[in-house]
Amino acid sequence: MEVWNRYVATRRHVEGAPTEADFEVIENTARWSPDSGEVLVKNLFLSIDPYQLNRMKVTSASHHAVDGILPGQRIAAYTAGEVVASASPEYAAGDVVVGVLGWEEYSLFDPSSPAAAATVHKVSTGGGGGFPLSHHLSVLGTSGMTAYGGLFEVSKPAKGEKVFVSAASGSVGSLAGQFAKLAGCYVVGCAGTQAKVDLLKDKLGFDDAFNYKEEPDLKSALKRYFPDGIDIYFENVGGEMLEAALANMNTYGRVALSGVISEYTGAGRRAVPDLLEVIYKRITIRGFFAWDFLPKFPEFGAVIGEWIREGKVHVLEDVSDGIDSVPAAFAALFSGHNVGKKLVKLA
Amino acid sequence: MEVWNRYVATRRHVEGAPTEADFEVIENTARWSPDSGEVLVKNLFLSIDPYQLNRMKVTSASHHAVDGILPGQRIAAYTAGEVVASASPEYAAGDVVVGVLGWEEYSLFDPSSPAAAATVHKVSTGGGGGFPLSHHLSVLGTSGMTAYGGLFEVSKPAKGEKVFVSAASGSVGSLAGQFAKLAGCYVVGCAGTQAKVDLLKDKLGFDDAFNYKEEPDLKSALKRYFPDGIDIYFENVGGEMLEAALANMNTYGRVALSGVISEYTGAGRRAVPDLLEVIYKRITIRGFFAWDFLPKFPEFGAVIGEWIREGKVHVLEDVSDGIDSVPAAFAALFSGHNVGKKLVKLA
Repeated sequence: MEVWNRYVATRRHVEGAPTEADFEVIENTARWSPDSGEVLVKNLFLSIDPYQLNRMKVTSASHHAVDGILPGQRIAAYTAGEVVASASPEYAAGDVVVGVLGWEEYSLFDPSSPAAAATVHKVSTGGGGGFPLSHHLSVLGTSGMTAYGGLFEVSKPAKGEKVFVSAASGSVGSLAGQFAKLAGCYVVGCAGTQAKVDLLKDKLGFDDAFNYKEEPDLKSALKRYFPDGIDIYFENVGGEMLEAALANMNTYGRVALSGVISEYTGAGRRAVPDLLEVIYKRITIRGFFAWDFLPKFPEFGAVIGEWIREGKVHVLEDVSDGIDSVPAAFAALFSGHNVGKKLVKLA
Repeated sequence: MEVWNRYVATRRHVEGAPTEADFEVIENTARWSPDSGEVLVKNLFLSIDPYQLNRMKVTSASHHAVDGILPGQRIAAYTAGEVVASASPEYAAGDVVVGVLGWEEYSLFDPSSPAAAATVHKVSTGGGGGFPLSHHLSVLGTSGMTAYGGLFEVSKPAKGEKVFVSAASGSVGSLAGQFAKLAGCYVVGCAGTQAKVDLLKDKLGFDDAFNYKEEPDLKSALKRYFPDGIDIYFENVGGEMLEAALANMNTYGRVALSGVISEYTGAGRRAVPDLLEVIYKRITIRGFFAWDFLPKFPEFGAVIGEWIREGKVHVLEDVSDGIDSVPAAFAALFSGHNVGKKLVKLA
């Protein structure tokens, strides 16, 4: 069987903020045969994540953990889709799957490969306790796992602790803040527009929120929002925001270093943390990502799923349509145009 | 009873590298009376530590944890001395004590005050398993506790892990490196002279060592000394050294942030860590100091004491004579002139 496929590729390595012109949509064919052992998936949703930018650079520390992306090549990414043909006994046509496949309309994977075995799995959607398929790429996908792991495994919040979340209306931040509220913390988030700030306070239940773009001095802003200091900083931004958070942290404060989007593009200047703050306040800064908690995903997912059913977590998804919208959707992550999890819906 | 006393004070707040001219030795009298409840101590050794510089600044993150030092005032510091008069049932003339007293010839303390109760204690020296008094300010004092706690509590080394120690011939570094060897690690240290490098390799048993001043590119130097990467960085320096270490760290690497002496004076530029390294290698950077492990001091001291008795740890002490030598001894810490623990011997 052969299907026409279209996939998104970079035209070149991307070093600064990405633009649509850095990408192209390439046509090819996906060939599946009954003796290949492979599964052919028609992708229904593609996950659009900031960290992909690091993979597009010539060199990046991200290459320690995930392969770099070569111009012209397909780009591995989380997707959710439906099996259209299977040469594996584990999958059948009609199965709904989620996993690391690619920014493309159709994906082939081999369930016997360790990578696919670790990352691709079947999900049930719709009735009978199922969730919308898109949720498996957002709140029940790596965004949710990152928020949950970063909060509960890395930061270990105690009730009443003060939590600051940057990029708080983003895919991970919006969940980290809500999870921190559910843990009994006082939570303040920052975002880049008044509409996002309103959303955080009015819909997501943050105790407070502010527009960082309207704060000439982030240190004094945080001093205002946290007169008793910050215990946990859920860090998605980097640069000056990290410096300001450290200056306002309490003794034994924890920084869950989830992302530093302002430093991915190289446009924002890098954080120059005052290490004396880190020493004398005995702060722990820990880098992590969701996969560190892979064995705990079922446990995390069960808790989060229950919260969603009980209406305790609002899921923000920002969905574009069609494979051709991927470049613009990805570029928009770095200009702050998305709210919540950025997804592209296919077909 | 009244004794002539002399104490060291700053003449002004100190912001850059300290010089002898920043200090003066002031004469006063120490008055002790039998109904004061106080203990009068004749100090025999004074501990000279880099962190005191942060206390001398107008503002510093250190002020979160330890009081700032005001010009003209006595300077609290660890000392070892002998009780000459006691109005407390807990102490008697002739007792040898170690604790936070001051850069002065005579100190008074009230054993009923919480601060003194927490920090001052009697020690036995000489025969019967005792150690030289000076050791209670170095290897059995906060330097040893910092090295032990930073290594075993913060960094948790596994046998065979690769450990990098900066300022490795200093009071803490020289012990952290030796302790790491005793934990079965591969240990490389850096220092600022060839003589120190030789000392690390020939006497302290480091697997390797290098003179950072002769390395134009610290990142490639560390790449050479750690072809398989660094698992633990025992950080005493800051600045460019931290950046280079992060670039060479392995996944799940740990940075025990003990001190950043190059950043205390403000002369060296601050570290601008690549936070992508921290995220993608899931590095933990943790600030700490010895007092975080205060309840474990007896346990740490027992282990370290046994190592000393067995000849497994070399204790480096660099001793100056007389209260008048304190300013020069302190200033020398920041020009790299000391080897091991800097102490001033009185009387």
